[in-house]
Amino acid sequence: GFASKSFEATLFPGDGIGPEIAASVREIFAAARIPVVWDEQHIGKTPDPRTNSMVTRENLDSVLKHKIGLKGPMATPIGKGFRSLNLTLRKELDLYANVRPCFNIPGYKTRYDGINLVTVRENTEGEYSGLEHEVVPGVVESLKVITRKASSRIAEFAFAYARENGRSKVTAVHKANIMKKADGLFLECCREVSAKYGDIKYEEVIVDNACMQLVSNPLQFDVLVMPNLYGDIISDLCAGLVGGLGVTPSMNIGMNGLALAEAVHGTAPDIAGKNKANPTALLLSSAMMLRHLGRRAEGDNIQNAVLGVIAEGKYRTADLGGNATTSDFTKAVIDKLE
Amino acid sequence: GFASKSFEATLFPGDGIGPEIAASVREIFAAARIPVVWDEQHIGKTPDPRTNSMVTRENLDSVLKHKIGLKGPMATPIGKGFRSLNLTLRKELDLYANVRPCFNIPGYKTRYDGINLVTVRENTEGEYSGLEHEVVPGVVESLKVITRKASSRIAEFAFAYARENGRSKVTAVHKANIMKKADGLFLECCREVSAKYGDIKYEEVIVDNACMQLVSNPLQFDVLVMPNLYGDIISDLCAGLVGGLGVTPSMNIGMNGLALAEAVHGTAPDIAGKNKANPTALLLSSAMMLRHLGRRAEGDNIQNAVLGVIAEGKYRTADLGGNATTSDFTKAVIDKLE
Ligand SMILES: CC(C)[C@H](C(=O)O)[C@@H](O)C(=O)O
Ligand SMILES: CC(C)[C@H](C(=O)O)[C@@H](O)C(=O)O
Repeated sequence: GFASKSFEATLFPGDGIGPEIAASVREIFAAARIPVVWDEQHIGKTPDPRTNSMVTRENLDSVLKHKIGLKGPMATPIGKGFRSLNLTLRKELDLYANVRPCFNIPGYKTRYDGINLVTVRENTEGEYSGLEHEVVPGVVESLKVITRKASSRIAEFAFAYARENGRSKVTAVHKANIMKKADGLFLECCREVSAKYGDIKYEEVIVDNACMQLVSNPLQFDVLVMPNLYGDIISDLCAGLVGGLGVTPSMNIGMNGLALAEAVHGTAPDIAGKNKANPTALLLSSAMMLRHLGRRAEGDNIQNAVLGVIAEGKYRTADLGGNATTSDFTKAVIDKLE
Repeated sequence: GFASKSFEATLFPGDGIGPEIAASVREIFAAARIPVVWDEQHIGKTPDPRTNSMVTRENLDSVLKHKIGLKGPMATPIGKGFRSLNLTLRKELDLYANVRPCFNIPGYKTRYDGINLVTVRENTEGEYSGLEHEVVPGVVESLKVITRKASSRIAEFAFAYARENGRSKVTAVHKANIMKKADGLFLECCREVSAKYGDIKYEEVIVDNACMQLVSNPLQFDVLVMPNLYGDIISDLCAGLVGGLGVTPSMNIGMNGLALAEAVHGTAPDIAGKNKANPTALLLSSAMMLRHLGRRAEGDNIQNAVLGVIAEGKYRTADLGGNATTSDFTKAVIDKLE
């Protein structure tokens, strides 16, 4: 067993199936003797005037204090003019990088094999500026904002991530043939940073071609870095190649090591409370969280157990074609822990 | 045989392999006794001051006169500040819709089967406005422009296309959860137009989810309609699902029935002049052109012959894993014509 330093972490169980999959993580962490003290946080039921969102000041302060968190799916309140919960968290915590490793789950067949890439998405600007206006009736302008600061920061993150994780290539995805200045600036920053990383190969690919290549020849890619919207699109596309958001981990990174790992799938209200949900995405995200804290062995222990259970095939939840309950799956993972 | 009314059409053979695949089209049209008079047009070697592009005034006038054209690949002059040839043609001819049917080629195996959808891309505005500026050093703004006029026009086109081609559903692709005003206006126009087409189902899908769905469950889609950049990305993604740009037809539509069909693959300079190029994309595009002119039987004759030759597998060009020359393939298509 491990005898490692304990730590505190924020846990947002979230809505719908969130509490069930969060409970699965808690059980598995306990069984793996990971000395975490969870600070469980719940989003408010009415908007907090201090954040103009259901995300409360206390929610944010918890993550800022522990500098590490894990988040289940949250139901976005429709309409009403409140800010989306995800966007509020990203903005208020300055979660500038979204990282999504994308790999085939052994034993869970899709049309693709051997995929092993990571998307690094700039998470703060670009097409998500929120700056839009109607110039005259029937004519709307929406501003994409690209800055040297954010572009250099995400490029630096991507290259450092590649090096730390033994990856050999970073590919910048862009549309600089059309958005010559905006995406041109993004590329300029990537090139500058690449010059400092002689050990990492650097390539560029236009976003339309990137998508065509990803669906036909995805094994050519390693780390992909890109502005916000391309990252939004391509990270989901990549998840689709290996089985969808239910089996894909994700982590958001802020300054000074702050990180919020999250399952990016929905709240699945139709199966909520029925002990049917698949906790895989949240578990793999929790493994990312552990590795981010330098607790690599603990992260690998969780991840290997999860992948081992799916590979064996005896305990799979309904979304993966099996009939295991969340509890069955959780127990099987616990039995597989080192 | 057919005894049909003759017509004139502009033909841009283009660069690289363009002249060889254009020659293949000419031969096959002649053998099929399609009474076309080609007005062959070549892009200039120096920029025409009247168009600020290598596309000359004569080039444009030819298409405007015949109202129908077929275009091979063109080498884009790098740098120099000239406008891209494709963008010049789109802009000057107001080619507002890009239509790309996407279907599996019988006998040419990819990871997908049974795909049969059409992407309809708004081709004139959105992220392609060309409006960008550096606000202060290191901060660039790029304008996405969405208008009621262009959005209604493309929506109307998509629904009319669906009805005319016996298709039952139009799906609008958007990111209105983020670009609430811009993509919101696009959706508003699609909804308005959909109300006039009670026989056609209407759905909406967010662009990131659209890409995930396309790679995991593409058979759910029929006609997809979307703003410029999403169309750029998704049309290439879809081409990737069925074998790439070398086997995917495309047509650009302007006002009053004007249309320019085109092969959207590259000029392949490495194999140019070697009798190795695959004319499939240009041939399938020429079939779209014929159908657009109401010459459905002639279009089907060409398309069936091309697909028949590929299905048989005896005469495939190198890109499809065979060793047929362009001439072999052309002859085989001619032998298969009705
Ligand atoms: C829910 C939505 C605002 C969000 C985004 O567009 O970023 C989602 O698609 C994501 O990728 O986290
Ligand atoms: C070459 C480029 C300007 C063009 C585009 O972005 O529209 C191409 O990708 C296309 O789809 O025709």
